Amino acid sequence: MNKTDMQGFFADLSTLDKEKYILVDYYFESLAEPYETATHLCEEMSTIQWHRVGIEEDFRPEFGAKAVALTNVRKIDQPSSPFLARHMGWKGGSVHACEVKIAYPYMNFGTDIPNLLTAFCGEGVMHAPSICAIRWLDIQFPESFLNAFQGPQFGVQGLRELLDVYERPFFFGVIKPNIGLQPKDYAQIAYEAWLGGLDVAMDDELVADAYWSRLEERSMLLGELRRKAEAQTGKKKMFQANITAEVDRLAELHDLAVANGANAVMLNSMTTGLSAVRVLRKRATVPLVSHFDLYGAMTQIPFHGVREKVFIKLQRMAGFDAILFSGFDARMKSSREDVLENTKACLEPLGNLKPALPIPAGSQWAGSLPELYQALGTIDFAIVPGRGVFEHPQGPEGGARSLHQGWEAVMQRVPLEQYALSHEELRLAIAARKGG
Amino acid sequence: MNKTDMQGFFADLSTLDKEKYILVDYYFESLAEPYETATHLCEEMSTIQWHRVGIEEDFRPEFGAKAVALTNVRKIDQPSSPFLARHMGWKGGSVHACEVKIAYPYMNFGTDIPNLLTAFCGEGVMHAPSICAIRWLDIQFPESFLNAFQGPQFGVQGLRELLDVYERPFFFGVIKPNIGLQPKDYAQIAYEAWLGGLDVAMDDELVADAYWSRLEERSMLLGELRRKAEAQTGKKKMFQANITAEVDRLAELHDLAVANGANAVMLNSMTTGLSAVRVLRKRATVPLVSHFDLYGAMTQIPFHGVREKVFIKLQRMAGFDAILFSGFDARMKSSREDVLENTKACLEPLGNLKPALPIPAGSQWAGSLPELYQALGTIDFAIVPGRGVFEHPQGPEGGARSLHQGWEAVMQRVPLEQYALSHEELRLAIAARKGG
Repeated sequence: MNKTDMQGFFADLSTLDKEKYILVDYYFESLAEPYETATHLCEEMSTIQWHRVGIEEDFRPEFGAKAVALTNVRKIDQPSSPFLARHMGWKGGSVHACEVKIAYPYMNFGTDIPNLLTAFCGEGVMHAPSICAIRWLDIQFPESFLNAFQGPQFGVQGLRELLDVYERPFFFGVIKPNIGLQPKDYAQIAYEAWLGGLDVAMDDELVADAYWSRLEERSMLLGELRRKAEAQTGKKKMFQANITAEVDRLAELHDLAVANGANAVMLNSMTTGLSAVRVLRKRATVPLVSHFDLYGAMTQIPFHGVREKVFIKLQRMAGFDAILFSGFDARMKSSREDVLENTKACLEPLGNLKPALPIPAGSQWAGSLPELYQALGTIDFAIVPGRGVFEHPQGPEGGARSLHQGWEAVMQRVPLEQYALSHEELRLAIAARKGG
Repeated sequence: MNKTDMQGFFADLSTLDKEKYILVDYYFESLAEPYETATHLCEEMSTIQWHRVGIEEDFRPEFGAKAVALTNVRKIDQPSSPFLARHMGWKGGSVHACEVKIAYPYMNFGTDIPNLLTAFCGEGVMHAPSICAIRWLDIQFPESFLNAFQGPQFGVQGLRELLDVYERPFFFGVIKPNIGLQPKDYAQIAYEAWLGGLDVAMDDELVADAYWSRLEERSMLLGELRRKAEAQTGKKKMFQANITAEVDRLAELHDLAVANGANAVMLNSMTTGLSAVRVLRKRATVPLVSHFDLYGAMTQIPFHGVREKVFIKLQRMAGFDAILFSGFDARMKSSREDVLENTKACLEPLGNLKPALPIPAGSQWAGSLPELYQALGTIDFAIVPGRGVFEHPQGPEGGARSLHQGWEAVMQRVPLEQYALSHEELRLAIAARKGG
């Protein structure tokens, strides 16, 4: 491509009709000069051959992706992935690195999720010439695009109303043992956790509709005990049924679970497919909760793939009311900054879409609450322990109580250990955590 | 976990009922000793809390994932991702590395794709404790599992019959210009390529159903000209329509495209969702062709994510008759070994499922044929140029001719340059490639 051709894939953002463009940000490393590389990236993402042979025409003004900013252009001592760089011809030495913002005319494809993902993380992006590392950092949408999306049906405020929980975070718990426990016994431990103060008992991401725990029976039993727990405690409770399945069963499983007493449904969002979730959203009558799956394979390497916040935004747009993502625990492999960015992606304004409840997950227990609250700076989140509730030495009821006590300590600005002196369940939770 | 507990997640493969287990292979790097790490991985993937508090029970024998082989156990000088390792507490120095084979009782979830991906690439795997790099290398299925899948409806042999092409590779071409060209002009260049000898004209992965090229009009025009080209050449031709869209439109778009004359449909397999593809397969009446999208973000880093062959197998099982994947071109970022493994994953025995046509893609032209044929060692593949056909100096007809000439040279064991002396289209293709 000569210099004049390259200019066809650059633009001054202020001259573009903003309602026609999605803005996407990438970090990339390149063996070639960044300006040139960015033009190749833009052509691969859009109209790579912009005229027919022998015909004077130019599809770039209307259909071309356009680089609108190259920032932080620099050289780095060596490529982040020497393997990929060598494969592309690197012989050693420094490589180029930069961030690029690209304006993409979204009517190239429309307003559906599969084509959006193809455009921004498909062959064009992941296999652009000269690029030996690339990470999709962010995405911003015009109102005209967001208007095509329903987003959360309930959102944070809706969940507060459904659960009558206003002045604290939500207490979710993933029912454990997960795989293997019969529905009757499984419902019983959820019930005990509800009695102890859990708001939401949810199926683990691996507990779907299998021979050892049919969704029909499980949702029936959990629905019954949920209502019983509500009657006994005078509090509203929620059972989130995992309906992950082949996509032609989602509507049927949603309807079945809800009819039986599940008052929320959970899906593994990426393995099921965001598009299928968006379709389910049209008929859903209860909150949709996402579990993060598959995308760890895309998000964890800091110079590669996709930043988690991009998927958070897309999940919110697809219609999830609450979004689990990798939280602060070391094994979650998320930076603190990413956890905060993900939380923001749930809560910040996004067209007319409601906020989704952020759920930074991972090996939580009562003692995670001080850190979560301090880091997130809001009560609009959920804590989601599994064993932190269900493996509590006193069982699930004590485990759920320990969550409330942990939160009371936070509110009273009392160190956990001190509050535990007069609160048995919290004391036992701390002891268990220490392997005591 | 103590040593006895760890043993619950290990097994001797020869003692297991093979029809009940899927075998998955991972490479991992770990801050802890590999045996212990493998048990954590197995528990995270399956029944992480295998008994209720205070109750004697053990779900591991029936439901536990079981490590059956730890191989190539070693120490490496430093972690492949120092970033992830540091995040998990690494202070410098060597880390453990190994491959592990895990037997997974698939009735934990059943036979659907979303739960399979959740089990093998979900939170459990991507966020297992102590693991600072993990790559899903391979998967093997028992017959009982594969029997739940339809696989390709036509397969390689079916495609040969549909196109009446038996003694050579298939010549596919991605119609370019892709984005922006009106259906009438777009159909015309496909027609010219068919006249020149192209077997299959296919939509680019970014050409879906958008305002500037509605699938209805495009498939109608391409369908007409396909039949005209067949009548003129006496050869069978194929138009592959890209029907990628929100998943509730796939059936409608398939039916529309086929009624209008498309005789194959293409989908961006991962962005649409493999589950949605498997559902579409039930009603599809024409071959399904996959385009690789999104998974570059999972496959490219050699110590991380998922090896491409895993997705190839799953795409074949979901029902694709032909599978595009990243081929030999440097920008495709695939090792030679991976391209060969992907080809094998398309063609090798897989239960009773038909072979799928392998299509190693990426910036191809006539001159790619010698390398492809030599490397793959079979004629059961397709070449899939874009600009290599449609930007040929003589236009698409000459471009398609150059493919046939390239193949004739291979068959006659004549160097391309020599064959080009008496074959104008090939000569021009070579010159164009050299920027001449």
